[in-house]
Amino acid sequence: MKQKLAIGLVLGAAATAALAGPIEDQIRFRQSAYSFLGWNTAKIKAQAVDHPETFNKEEVVAAANAVAAVANSGLLGLYGEGSAEGTGWKPSRLKVEYFEKKDEVKEIEAGFIAEANELQKVAASGDVGAIKEQFGKVGKTCKSCHDLIRVRE
Amino acid sequence: MKQKLAIGLVLGAAATAALAGPIEDQIRFRQSAYSFLGWNTAKIKAQAVDHPETFNKEEVVAAANAVAAVANSGLLGLYGEGSAEGTGWKPSRLKVEYFEKKDEVKEIEAGFIAEANELQKVAASGDVGAIKEQFGKVGKTCKSCHDLIRVRE
Repeated sequence: MKQKLAIGLVLGAAATAALAGPIEDQIRFRQSAYSFLGWNTAKIKAQAVDHPETFNKEEVVAAANAVAAVANSGLLGLYGEGSAEGTGWKPSRLKVEYFEKKDEVKEIEAGFIAEANELQKVAASGDVGAIKEQFGKVGKTCKSCHDLIRVRE
Repeated sequence: MKQKLAIGLVLGAAATAALAGPIEDQIRFRQSAYSFLGWNTAKIKAQAVDHPETFNKEEVVAAANAVAAVANSGLLGLYGEGSAEGTGWKPSRLKVEYFEKKDEVKEIEAGFIAEANELQKVAASGDVGAIKEQFGKVGKTCKSCHDLIRVRE
């Protein structure tokens, strides 16, 4: 009975943490998520900010969907105890102070999700000016988090 | 005038290829996209296939949105000439035969997109059995591509 409960707890934890297994996996998955995010934000920046003459609605909508999907993917599940140190694809850049600032980060994440969801809506409208403006708001939430808990390179 | 045209072409190409810049960036971005995809497919597998008793609709919907976002992100833009060799986060596993099989891969990509879009719809329904079945269809498109153009580890 005790064993059954233990197995249940392990399964439950595995499913909730969803591959937040070994520290290195967590770090590698979050680095992958942010790189995929960066590829997609770069597409939006290129087409809605830097070179609006190259705007391609279909590509920007796809990129905004990707940004929203990353934002809503449960990234904080990849910030387990001990994950400020360790190497995924490269060494973690998470400040150890994160673990004292979890509540603040959770609030920033909520802002990131809200602004990314709004960007997804605005992108579907195809209004380049509005996309540029909303893209700036998403970027601010990224920066808040970087300033708070990411080691400068 | 000639110079202006040349600049225009460069800008156009930059925006279209959307950061498909140096070979190493392409490889790193595609490795990131597939790792982010793998993290999300693992969540769906855990909750809809292996341990349906842990099914959490909100998490599975978010994961299915992520799978669809990756599928629709224009991955083939990251398979430029020369990108079968080179190192992103790790050495590329793309077979050089890809460049003779582009049309076949494009067809597989279309299937991947269609099945991932369907998974996104089915996930929103919350029907675990239907999600499991549709998840299997997505997996088959992944495997087709792996068998065709990915070097075995």
